[in-house]
Amino acid sequence: MRLALAHLGKRESLEALLKALSPLARAAREEGAGLLLLPELVLGKMPSPPLPEALSALAQETGILLVAGHLGEGPRNRLQVFPEGPVYDKVHLYLPLGEEGDRGLLHGKGPVAFPWRGRSFGLALCYDLDFPELFRAYALKGVQAFLVGAAWPGAYAGLLEVLARARAAENQAYLFLASRADTGSPTLFIAPDGRVLGRREEEGLLLAEPDWGFLEAYREKYPLLRHRREEAYRVR
Amino acid sequence: MRLALAHLGKRESLEALLKALSPLARAAREEGAGLLLLPELVLGKMPSPPLPEALSALAQETGILLVAGHLGEGPRNRLQVFPEGPVYDKVHLYLPLGEEGDRGLLHGKGPVAFPWRGRSFGLALCYDLDFPELFRAYALKGVQAFLVGAAWPGAYAGLLEVLARARAAENQAYLFLASRADTGSPTLFIAPDGRVLGRREEEGLLLAEPDWGFLEAYREKYPLLRHRREEAYRVR
Repeated sequence: MRLALAHLGKRESLEALLKALSPLARAAREEGAGLLLLPELVLGKMPSPPLPEALSALAQETGILLVAGHLGEGPRNRLQVFPEGPVYDKVHLYLPLGEEGDRGLLHGKGPVAFPWRGRSFGLALCYDLDFPELFRAYALKGVQAFLVGAAWPGAYAGLLEVLARARAAENQAYLFLASRADTGSPTLFIAPDGRVLGRREEEGLLLAEPDWGFLEAYREKYPLLRHRREEAYRVR
Repeated sequence: MRLALAHLGKRESLEALLKALSPLARAAREEGAGLLLLPELVLGKMPSPPLPEALSALAQETGILLVAGHLGEGPRNRLQVFPEGPVYDKVHLYLPLGEEGDRGLLHGKGPVAFPWRGRSFGLALCYDLDFPELFRAYALKGVQAFLVGAAWPGAYAGLLEVLARARAAENQAYLFLASRADTGSPTLFIAPDGRVLGRREEEGLLLAEPDWGFLEAYREKYPLLRHRREEAYRVR
């Protein structure tokens, strides 16, 4: 199984986005990838009602699934699978004091897993990475990989990498992270033991090939999820 | 407020431990530290019934609190505050396939916080770092710092560092980690934003001075704990 991650900067119009994305989708398909993950809010917070239809058409035309972050109705900060697939709305809105962040958006209700080729992928966006609870909920539902779109400020790229590696390792799952190129944060492919297997910091594609045999052997040797002690976590 | 972390190798007898520890405790006190954190299982899994009394005596004699990992009754893998203070028993036993780890030990029942000089410190040991639930439970109880003893295999020191930094950052708390010098893993002092503020990889002391004003300003600007969405984490 091969996936591709697009390290792609925000575009100012749907037309400009499609112009950048079309060749990436075709190149990813030619490289044998079945899915192309895009970053968070590929057009920023600009509403673009025709975006879902355009991305569905591109996905069908190129024969590759597109998983893209965009502004959905509500408005909501959304990660959606095209041409047809589940829609994840960002659960944790980024609301720092004195910054715009996700202000004015509606939050999502919970985790959304995407079954693909016999595996289960958990969808998430950017600031969600600060909340291990969401990723643990996915793991307990049987998720073996995370698809994360991000537009994380590059000044804190070190923290992004630490959190992404921790989410992968503590859940023994692959983590695919596509970052917006204009932020200065990296696009990353992370192993179930937290190792960084791939990294891209310039616009373009990062190819990623998960080794499910490794994941299964690793989970068998270190049965971490079975070592949880639910009764110890209740706050009294 | 100043703390000291002892990067100290396992000793084969209580006598050898005290010989190594006495000068460290005195030096820490002279440097103005009020508390000295030691690693996990300072005598390995060797039972030593007189250890608690000996560490209490040393703490009283030198006028510094000792927080030390040792084999408690049960047997349990324990982190204990001397001369008198709470006892934390390791909640998550490390039980990888085909390795001894914590096999044969009894697990602890839950988090144990230690109030000191107007702040609340959460106690934890080594493999606990794989479980964000425990650290989140502490944060929700008002803990602002973690005291962690470890004997983490040096071959995975990179993972230890990632997990320790993530636990600090996702809870916006200081994290003090004392590692056993014989493992090859580092002793670390980590900021509430995940930055590594201090590191020691040779036997001896690491001094650590938390800046509570920084922690409070950081939590105010990024009110992460208030952005949790408990209802989204339930596994259906």
